Amino acid sequence: MSEEKKTSLQTEDFSAWYIDTIQKADLMDYAPVRGCIVFKPDGYELWEHIQAGLDRRFKATGHRNAYFPMLIPESFMQKEKEHIEGFNPELPWVTEAGGEKLEERLALRPTSETMIGHMYSKWIQSYRDLPMLLNQWANVFRWEKRTLPFLRTSEFLWQEGHTAHATQEEAEAETLQMLDIYADFAENDMAMPVVKGKKTPSERFAGAVDTYSIEGMMKDGKALQAGTSHYLGQNFSKGFDITFLDRDNTHKHVYTTSWGVSTRMIGALVMVHGDDKGLALPPKLAPTQVIMIPIGPPKLREKVMERFEPLRESLANAGIRVRADLREETPGWKFNEWEMRGVPIRLELGPRDVEANQCVLVRRDTGEKTPASLENIVARVKMLLDEIQINMYKKAHAFLQANCHLGVESMGDLQRHIASSESCGALAGWVLAGWCGDDECEAKVKAETKFTTRNIPFEAPVHKTTCIACCKPAKHTVWLARAY
Amino acid sequence: MSEEKKTSLQTEDFSAWYIDTIQKADLMDYAPVRGCIVFKPDGYELWEHIQAGLDRRFKATGHRNAYFPMLIPESFMQKEKEHIEGFNPELPWVTEAGGEKLEERLALRPTSETMIGHMYSKWIQSYRDLPMLLNQWANVFRWEKRTLPFLRTSEFLWQEGHTAHATQEEAEAETLQMLDIYADFAENDMAMPVVKGKKTPSERFAGAVDTYSIEGMMKDGKALQAGTSHYLGQNFSKGFDITFLDRDNTHKHVYTTSWGVSTRMIGALVMVHGDDKGLALPPKLAPTQVIMIPIGPPKLREKVMERFEPLRESLANAGIRVRADLREETPGWKFNEWEMRGVPIRLELGPRDVEANQCVLVRRDTGEKTPASLENIVARVKMLLDEIQINMYKKAHAFLQANCHLGVESMGDLQRHIASSESCGALAGWVLAGWCGDDECEAKVKAETKFTTRNIPFEAPVHKTTCIACCKPAKHTVWLARAY
Repeated sequence: MSEEKKTSLQTEDFSAWYIDTIQKADLMDYAPVRGCIVFKPDGYELWEHIQAGLDRRFKATGHRNAYFPMLIPESFMQKEKEHIEGFNPELPWVTEAGGEKLEERLALRPTSETMIGHMYSKWIQSYRDLPMLLNQWANVFRWEKRTLPFLRTSEFLWQEGHTAHATQEEAEAETLQMLDIYADFAENDMAMPVVKGKKTPSERFAGAVDTYSIEGMMKDGKALQAGTSHYLGQNFSKGFDITFLDRDNTHKHVYTTSWGVSTRMIGALVMVHGDDKGLALPPKLAPTQVIMIPIGPPKLREKVMERFEPLRESLANAGIRVRADLREETPGWKFNEWEMRGVPIRLELGPRDVEANQCVLVRRDTGEKTPASLENIVARVKMLLDEIQINMYKKAHAFLQANCHLGVESMGDLQRHIASSESCGALAGWVLAGWCGDDECEAKVKAETKFTTRNIPFEAPVHKTTCIACCKPAKHTVWLARAY
Repeated sequence: MSEEKKTSLQTEDFSAWYIDTIQKADLMDYAPVRGCIVFKPDGYELWEHIQAGLDRRFKATGHRNAYFPMLIPESFMQKEKEHIEGFNPELPWVTEAGGEKLEERLALRPTSETMIGHMYSKWIQSYRDLPMLLNQWANVFRWEKRTLPFLRTSEFLWQEGHTAHATQEEAEAETLQMLDIYADFAENDMAMPVVKGKKTPSERFAGAVDTYSIEGMMKDGKALQAGTSHYLGQNFSKGFDITFLDRDNTHKHVYTTSWGVSTRMIGALVMVHGDDKGLALPPKLAPTQVIMIPIGPPKLREKVMERFEPLRESLANAGIRVRADLREETPGWKFNEWEMRGVPIRLELGPRDVEANQCVLVRRDTGEKTPASLENIVARVKMLLDEIQINMYKKAHAFLQANCHLGVESMGDLQRHIASSESCGALAGWVLAGWCGDDECEAKVKAETKFTTRNIPFEAPVHKTTCIACCKPAKHTVWLARAY
C-alpha cells in the first residue's frame, strides 16, 4: 500500500535496481535489528525450493541431516587458531541467560565446525564409524559492518555439511563431489552458469587447507561466490581430538570437510536473471510457475470462468505451481505485476479464446506470446517451462561468455580495460589473469583495481604464462573480478 | 561403541527407560551447552517427517512460510505486559556483538509474537491485506531450570503460526481450525489419540485471551501438551499498533492468533508407543519403514542376495523407506537392533524363502510373523504399513481409555485413587473432575496431588456437577493429570 515509486533502471544504477526489485517483488523487508531482514513468503518460498533441490542431492549421495546447538562456548571457538582469528570480529555473544550472568560467554554460531568437531570426537571411535556424512539446515550469525539483503546479513539461513573420513583422499574426493553438486544445482535448477575452482590462500575459509568455490556472474558483471566446499585436513580433528582406531590397529586423526550454501542464492537469482521489468525466475524455483489471468469484458466473465477454473485445476493436479489472479484490477496492471514478480508463464484466457478452445501463453524470458490449444495444455505448459528453464541458462551463459575477458596481460591492460568499460558504459566483467602465487601481487591488484581473485578455475579457457602484477612466470591462471 | 548397558524397564522406571531408549535408538545426544541436545540423524529425520506432515496441512489451509529475525530487541519484549512477565525469566540475552557492547540487549526469541507484531504493523494497512496467514519454522530458546531431552530443552525447534484477521469471529475460527489440524496430525500421522480442549486461565500462554491444547497420554499415564493454539484477541495488535482501514472506512485493530508445535513431538512418539524392546514408530513417521535382513548360512548367501537386492529396489521405487542390513552380525543381533530402533516391519529372506518365492514379514507392533509371497510384495507391504499405523492408534487409544478415570468426585477420592494406584503398581492416569472456575481450587489440587488441569475438553465423556476441591457447583469439567 506504499506509494508507487519509480523503480531504478538496472543499467543506470544496479544497486538501487536490486534493492527496489527485491522489495517491489515482495521478497523481503528490513527488520528492526541491525543488518537483519525478514524473508517474506515469496522470498522464503524461493529458499524452500532451493532447499528441496539441494537436500535431494545431499541425500542421494548418502548424507543425512542432523541439528546441533546454536550456542557455542567461547572455549570451543579457541581450539582452532585460524578459525577464531577469522570469525572472532563478527561474533555476537550471549552473556546472560535465565536472569544470571553466564560463567562462559556463548557465541551465536557463525558456522559449526567447532560444535560438530566436539561431537564427532565423542561419536567416532573406529574405522567402522567412518565416513560420517552429516548436514545441517540452520540459521547463522555474522555481525558484518556492511550488509546487503540476502547477500550479507547479520543473520542468514544456510546448510552446512560436515563430514569425517579415514583418509585424505576420501576427504578430498568428498570436497570436490560437493562442489560438483553445488555446480549441478546452480546450473540446472537456478539456470546460473558457474565457474568451479580453488580459492587462493588469502580467500580460504578460516581453518581450511583448501577452499573451493562456485562463482556466478551477476548482471553488473560482478562475481558472486555462490557456494564453497572446504577440505579441512586434520586441522579440526587435531583441535578437537577426533581420532579413530584404524584397521591396522593404530589410532589416527580423521580428515574432515565442510561445505555450505546460503540464502545469498536468492540474491544471486535476482541478479542473474532480473531486468528492468523486475524478477525473472527459473521455472524450477519459481513459487508461481504459471499465473492465470482472465481477460475480456466483465459481462463475458462468467463464460470465461466456466473454462478457467477447470483449467487451473488440471494444471495444479499435474503438479504445476499455478495461481489465478481474479482481483478487480485491469489485465494490463496484472501483467506488469506478475512480470515484476518474475513468473515464468502468464496464461491469458478471454471469451474469444474460449470459443477457439485455446488460451494465450506469454513467456517472461522472451516476452513471446503464442496461442495454445486447450486440448493438450498440461503437456504444452510443462514443455514450455522446460524450454524457459533451458533458455534462461543459455542467456545467462552467453552473458557470462560475453563478459569474460581473456586478453588482459598486465596491470596496465587491466586499468585500461576498466577505464574503457567505464567510459563507454560497458561492464568490466571478469578478467582471466596469470598469477605468480604471491600474496603481495594479489593484494596489489585488489588495492589498485578492486578486482579480487575469484578462484583458480579447474578449466581455464586459456593458460596465462606471466603474472599480471609482477610479470614473473605465472603459477596459476585465475579469474579476477569485483565481487559481492 | 560404548559398552552394552542393561536398559531400564519401562514399567520399573519410566524416566530411566525414556533416557536409555532415546540414546540407544540414537535419536539424540547431550550437547556441551546447558540444557541443549544434538538431534542425531534418526531423531532429526523424525522431525523432518513431522514437518512434512504439518507443513502440507498448513499450506492446504492457505498459510505460507516466512522467516523473521531470531534476535528481539528488549523494548519489543516489553510491549505486551503479560508476555514479558511470562517469558522474561527464561530469556538468554545477546549483549555484545562485532566487538562492541550493544546499546540495547537482544533476546534470543522464546516465540515471535513481538517481532512479527512489529512487522505486521508495517504490512497491514487495509482490510485487503487480511487475513495474513504466516508460519515460521525456527529454533527458539527458553532457559528453563529443569530440562529433559526433546520435552524441555534450552534450544528447541518448532513451527509458530501467526495470523491476523479483521474480526474476532474469524480469528477464533482460525485458532480452532489449527487445533483441529494438530489433532488430525497427531491422530493420523503420529497414531497418538489426543484430547482437545481449552486451557484454564492459569495455564494460558502469556498474552493470550484463550489458549487451546491437544493433550496426549504417555505410557506412564502422564499427560503431554503436544500442541497449543492461542486466540490473542487485540492484545498484541494494541501493543504493536496493528491497525487496518476497514470497509466502513474506520481504522481498527486486527485480531491475532498464534499456534505452535515443537520437537517435543519426538518425545511424545517415544513415550506413547515405546516398550521394553525400545522404540516403536508409526509407519508414517518412521525413518526406516522396512528393514531387510538376509538369513541362512553364509554359503547360501549369494543365492539369497540375487533376490534380495531386486526386492529392495522394488520396495524403494514404490516410495517405501526401506533399508538393508548387510552387516556381519548375526540375524538375532540385528532383529534386536531394529526392534529397538522401532522399525515397523522386518523383512527376512533366507534360502528356503527364495525357493518358496516368499519372504517373512515381522510386525514391530504385535510381533506377528507371517510368510508373504514375493509375487505382490509391494502391495502387501504397503497394506501392512497401513494396518500397523491403524493398529498402533487403536492400541494407544485403548490405553488412553483404560487410564481415564471418571468416578473421582472429591479431593478424598483423588487422593485415594492416587494412593491405591501407587500401592498396586497401576498408573494414576487422568482424572475427569468438576471445577468451580476458581484459581485457588486449581492451585489446591496441584499443591496436594501434583495433578494439574490439562484442559477443559470440548467433549467430556461425563459432565461433572461439583468442584473437586470446594464441592461448590462446577462451572467446567476438566482433565486432571500429572504432566510433562
